[in-house]
Amino acid sequence: MSTSPEIVRRLPDLRARVAAWRAEGHKVAVVPTMGALHEGHLSLVRQAAATGAKVIVTLFVNPRQFNSAADLAAYPRTEQEDATKLIGQGAQILYVPDGETMYPPGFATNVAVEGLSEGLCGTYRPGHFTGMATVVTKLFTQTSADLAYFGEKDFQQLRIVQRLAADLDLQIEVIGCTTVREADGLALSSRNTRLSAEARKVAPALHAEMRRVVSALEAGAEAAALLSDAIGRIVAGGYQAVEYLELRAADDLAPLSHADRPARLLAAAWLGGVRLIDNLPVTAIGGAR
Amino acid sequence: MSTSPEIVRRLPDLRARVAAWRAEGHKVAVVPTMGALHEGHLSLVRQAAATGAKVIVTLFVNPRQFNSAADLAAYPRTEQEDATKLIGQGAQILYVPDGETMYPPGFATNVAVEGLSEGLCGTYRPGHFTGMATVVTKLFTQTSADLAYFGEKDFQQLRIVQRLAADLDLQIEVIGCTTVREADGLALSSRNTRLSAEARKVAPALHAEMRRVVSALEAGAEAAALLSDAIGRIVAGGYQAVEYLELRAADDLAPLSHADRPARLLAAAWLGGVRLIDNLPVTAIGGAR
Repeated sequence: MSTSPEIVRRLPDLRARVAAWRAEGHKVAVVPTMGALHEGHLSLVRQAAATGAKVIVTLFVNPRQFNSAADLAAYPRTEQEDATKLIGQGAQILYVPDGETMYPPGFATNVAVEGLSEGLCGTYRPGHFTGMATVVTKLFTQTSADLAYFGEKDFQQLRIVQRLAADLDLQIEVIGCTTVREADGLALSSRNTRLSAEARKVAPALHAEMRRVVSALEAGAEAAALLSDAIGRIVAGGYQAVEYLELRAADDLAPLSHADRPARLLAAAWLGGVRLIDNLPVTAIGGAR
Repeated sequence: MSTSPEIVRRLPDLRARVAAWRAEGHKVAVVPTMGALHEGHLSLVRQAAATGAKVIVTLFVNPRQFNSAADLAAYPRTEQEDATKLIGQGAQILYVPDGETMYPPGFATNVAVEGLSEGLCGTYRPGHFTGMATVVTKLFTQTSADLAYFGEKDFQQLRIVQRLAADLDLQIEVIGCTTVREADGLALSSRNTRLSAEARKVAPALHAEMRRVVSALEAGAEAAALLSDAIGRIVAGGYQAVEYLELRAADDLAPLSHADRPARLLAAAWLGGVRLIDNLPVTAIGGAR
């Protein structure tokens, strides 16, 4: 398994590879990424490869899902390092389409998912989820994959992608994988590299507070006071601001006042000019997950 | 060719038929309809069958593309007659999904095409094109057809469908076919059955005026005065109102002041409580079509 993935840049070449795999009876899995790969991405690749499917990692920094030009400009672009990190992880192809391939002249189509795209990150990143849903739809149709692997770290994204795949009859199973964390609990993110050394020390406070909240929720507490209290402690711990800290239903992301069904605690917060997100599962008070 | 198409109602059954065709090396063509079939639809089926492809006619009265509940309620539903009309036309399957198959509980995804969906019918039928684009995307992914046949009568729809198929990498060629007309020039439409005998006599006035306008445009005339004059004559001829009569570029539907490139003259007008549309090609002044 120490082989490097082949780098494919053109859609016809990608399709030819997939057609050859299909002719041999292989399943195909896709792991969509924006590059700047870390252990979270690599764990997705390994889980995809473990199924026996041929694995395509996609690398496209999608301008349409950045609501901020500054964020787009600052987003790390490290194709060479990404390709190196993929050696031996089990991916056959690293698909790196250019902007013209993804958005040819006259491109005018949007895929939007109502409801799930509203609230949480949807409130703070207008247009983000429509841009994401559109490019993911294209990556699904371009790869015609049977399986897709996404991290649970972007939990709202995961639910939106599962919804659009079902709604548009794309015949792809979208699998969410547990968030990979540093030893101190910080969720891995390509944006972590932009944290100063000092901010990096403060960063685990978000996850630590969230764990405390989850324990209380699972013990039957009402969310409202718990959440506002936790927001105060996260800011006291060194974060500049908490965009949201909310309890939602795990399946359809409906707002919950307490964990009377399987739920998710989701947060976004600013630390040292970097926006970090995280989420944790909340077992329902009765015990259901 | 006197065989009846098989009626298929369930998506898994449809997919099984298509997979069997693919295994035998056949191409697949789809002709999406809302039923109430007329010779215009049948000519699409025959053109699809003439390619040698296996042909699926779809019949689904899509509630999401009706902006008026009254129009939806009044839309003819004639599945039995439709199936009979298809005998001997070359279709293998009449696919009739129910509402649950197309829009299962929790359905939340929209496919929208910017620009092309604005103006013309888009102005008068809010939401219509998004509903249409969404269901057509689903019919394309459900059938995984190689070819799709649409009438040019719904010209804006045709351009939107061609755009979304390209933008979403659906690997389907969308073919527009010449509008089929009655001997007196009236474009065939499922809505024509709702015209009174008196309105039916008046109906060809729209097409007749449009032909006069096309001749003048092709001779080099400016559109503005021509079009407002023609609107007056269409109303004087018995129509209650003209929603629009416009000259647009044939490819991207950009508004034109004269036919300096291949163009299309498009109209929508009300007659006896029925909304009729029509359009005609306009050769560019230099001669290009």
